[in-house]
Amino acid sequence: MTPDEFRQHGHAMIDHIADYMRDVASYPVLSRVAPGDVAALLPDEPPSEGESWDAIIADIDRVVMPGLTHWQSPNFYAYFPATTSPPAILGDLLSSGLGVQGMLWSTSPACTEIETKVLDWLADIINLPEAFTSRSSRGGGVIQGTASEAVLVTMLAARARAGHPPNPIVYCSSQAHSSVIKAAMIAGIGRDHVRLIDVDESLAMRPNRLAEQIRRDRADGFSPLFICATVGTTSSGAVDPVAAIGEISKREQCWLHVDAAWAGASCVCPEHQHIIGGVEYAESFNFNPHKWLLTTFDCSALWVQDRASILEALSITPEYLRNQASDSGALIDYRDWQIPLGRRFRALKLWFVIRHYGVEGLRKHIRRGVELATLFESQVKNDDQFELAAPRSLGLVCFRLKGDDARSQALLTRINDSGAAYFTHTRLPNPASPGEDQFVIRAAIGALQTREEHIRAVWARLQAEASQIHSD
Amino acid sequence: MTPDEFRQHGHAMIDHIADYMRDVASYPVLSRVAPGDVAALLPDEPPSEGESWDAIIADIDRVVMPGLTHWQSPNFYAYFPATTSPPAILGDLLSSGLGVQGMLWSTSPACTEIETKVLDWLADIINLPEAFTSRSSRGGGVIQGTASEAVLVTMLAARARAGHPPNPIVYCSSQAHSSVIKAAMIAGIGRDHVRLIDVDESLAMRPNRLAEQIRRDRADGFSPLFICATVGTTSSGAVDPVAAIGEISKREQCWLHVDAAWAGASCVCPEHQHIIGGVEYAESFNFNPHKWLLTTFDCSALWVQDRASILEALSITPEYLRNQASDSGALIDYRDWQIPLGRRFRALKLWFVIRHYGVEGLRKHIRRGVELATLFESQVKNDDQFELAAPRSLGLVCFRLKGDDARSQALLTRINDSGAAYFTHTRLPNPASPGEDQFVIRAAIGALQTREEHIRAVWARLQAEASQIHSD
Repeated sequence: MTPDEFRQHGHAMIDHIADYMRDVASYPVLSRVAPGDVAALLPDEPPSEGESWDAIIADIDRVVMPGLTHWQSPNFYAYFPATTSPPAILGDLLSSGLGVQGMLWSTSPACTEIETKVLDWLADIINLPEAFTSRSSRGGGVIQGTASEAVLVTMLAARARAGHPPNPIVYCSSQAHSSVIKAAMIAGIGRDHVRLIDVDESLAMRPNRLAEQIRRDRADGFSPLFICATVGTTSSGAVDPVAAIGEISKREQCWLHVDAAWAGASCVCPEHQHIIGGVEYAESFNFNPHKWLLTTFDCSALWVQDRASILEALSITPEYLRNQASDSGALIDYRDWQIPLGRRFRALKLWFVIRHYGVEGLRKHIRRGVELATLFESQVKNDDQFELAAPRSLGLVCFRLKGDDARSQALLTRINDSGAAYFTHTRLPNPASPGEDQFVIRAAIGALQTREEHIRAVWARLQAEASQIHSD
Repeated sequence: MTPDEFRQHGHAMIDHIADYMRDVASYPVLSRVAPGDVAALLPDEPPSEGESWDAIIADIDRVVMPGLTHWQSPNFYAYFPATTSPPAILGDLLSSGLGVQGMLWSTSPACTEIETKVLDWLADIINLPEAFTSRSSRGGGVIQGTASEAVLVTMLAARARAGHPPNPIVYCSSQAHSSVIKAAMIAGIGRDHVRLIDVDESLAMRPNRLAEQIRRDRADGFSPLFICATVGTTSSGAVDPVAAIGEISKREQCWLHVDAAWAGASCVCPEHQHIIGGVEYAESFNFNPHKWLLTTFDCSALWVQDRASILEALSITPEYLRNQASDSGALIDYRDWQIPLGRRFRALKLWFVIRHYGVEGLRKHIRRGVELATLFESQVKNDDQFELAAPRSLGLVCFRLKGDDARSQALLTRINDSGAAYFTHTRLPNPASPGEDQFVIRAAIGALQTREEHIRAVWARLQAEASQIHSD
């Protein structure tokens, strides 16, 4: 494909995506294919000779589209939003087109320096303490692929800083993301060495339980190492009390990591920054601009106060990676801040997003999500068939049909099968039956295109489906 | 940005990239900026209000381009090629534009099923045994971000399969990639538990030394766990004898992983498939289509014969990720095959590349790289000032100026500073002085645009620079 053919096919691909942006609401949100349906559309053998570009592109509609679950639909309320946006797509396109690899400063200085600077910007926007920026002598930010990698990298840094103690113990709440356990499994710490600390009625970690558990572990000869506080849990958006946990962490000389993968984006708004109050106690803080902040996956922002520990955990320099610039010690080689060696120029999309929307534009986007979730919450409250299963947290509303779980399960199946929207579920403590969980539907609001009309329409649809269940 | 504005700005971005493809040879290959130069061009504060798209785009030329090292230049001979190509860029663009997230089958079935099928295609193209394909009941392929992640994931699978034995030991040759040590550090196995096995004169692992070391380790109470054989080492392209290592691995009940990150791409050509002879002994095999096979970073293909061990090492299912499709057990959820939870639709770019070029087109690309390296090798041999430092391996030629290291170091600095090309170095054993290393320049050939004229020109330039050193 010559540059001019690329120009032609590239314009057509851009048009394809522009059409998709325009029409995304018209697709059934959850894909309707059965296992094997997509694979059956592909030949068993690769083509010996190259195919025409037209034949390849025709398969987008024939093979790909029916097999998609539409994360960018305004009616996608599942998991958490994974928002993409026009400037992010174009930043990612530029990254692919330039094809540079930023493992070392020297392998494309712009890839490293724009990343460092833009993460300083983002730290300032969410009001992180100065110690997390590269302006401090010891801290700074880095783009990881995902929050899972961020918690793994910081757990490794904690272990290196502590000098690889025997029987290290990791702490998080019972509501923390499964990636904390996964990181402990990967790191060889083991899931048996992860303590899931009990939560209060808001589903936030109880600091006194944490302190007790640490005391018990020390008495039993274990080495308390790493505490992960969650700001915005995946199930219900609960917010652990970072300051109280931070005081314990400091006293116990643990490494405190704050996982705000989803909720951290809301801190672009001053009125939400209180949720990370106490973050000055944390050695590391992470949130995903690829979730609610319009930056195409993957882009997970991690800041640390102590980059030396990350380097100690992850740096090795074989001869073939040595170079004058790195040997000078005056610069950042991000390969030493992450699990992989190679890395894309992911800062481009984040830089484009912040510049295109501006800080005020980002705030507007977050505020719209919170407003729409507030509207959804009020609909739940105003309908006697439904109940809130947890307090609304930012853009997340956990709700259910009153009565036994089967009714809410049936509602979830009906709404998802309808194609009108896609929700996922979780289980949360049943306030009426201590010790028991109940089935809960999550409405995670924040897609770029979601507007009041979508919320009103999906609510009407939920009511209609619910009344069918009632009469079944 | 509306869909129509995206259309307009997207066309312009495509044009920008098409121009870059056309003009990439005209840039100095290694960026000439000094540390801090790029950062100094950016404001200290993010914009409060959104900026115009024109202002953002103007900074590509002003800020980004001077700070790039041009990996796609026909004169890039550093590290290994990280080839991108027009169909891969368009596949990646489609992935960004659709913005789906393939952590589970249900979150976009096409993302999982196209990946599985295309990796079966690729396995067939490089002639991997059937047991590595998804057609077998136990094996299959997955796209990882990098070879570093592939070796980590398989090391974890080995540990899970072996039941987490005490004092596990990892083996690789002294020439293996640093990612093996890094994986052992991450996994908590520790770099002290990595045995670097001695190599022969071709820099390939000596199987008898491996067998001896395993025997010694067992006698000392260690648990031999994981062997990484390298097909195409980073320094010199050496090829470990996979079959001989595989017999030892089988006898010792270790997990054999074959890391062919760079050289594996050459196995699209039947004449090179002998380099992975014995791969049937391996539990896992990995190579990076994002290196020499035209598939924009990141795309690292990993195949396993035993996917159950990977799931055992990495799978945890919290309630919020449960769904009917997964619970049926009839399908693949790739989140359980990797370190992160989320994942891009990376199969699109690989699918587009294989279909656009066809198997014959991929072979042609590899053969051109090998031919050009053969030409480069002959130039080295025909010039008395120069010497080969290792036998040519596929597209990699290791060479130096005869005499002391300072001369080759000076040549490397001169050629890189000239902007005409970019090479990197390594250190390899000096055949004249057993036990000593010498400084060596690596010419890694395989960029999409490199042609005979570039090889002849860069050789003339190397000769001219060398004669300057002579007369200094």
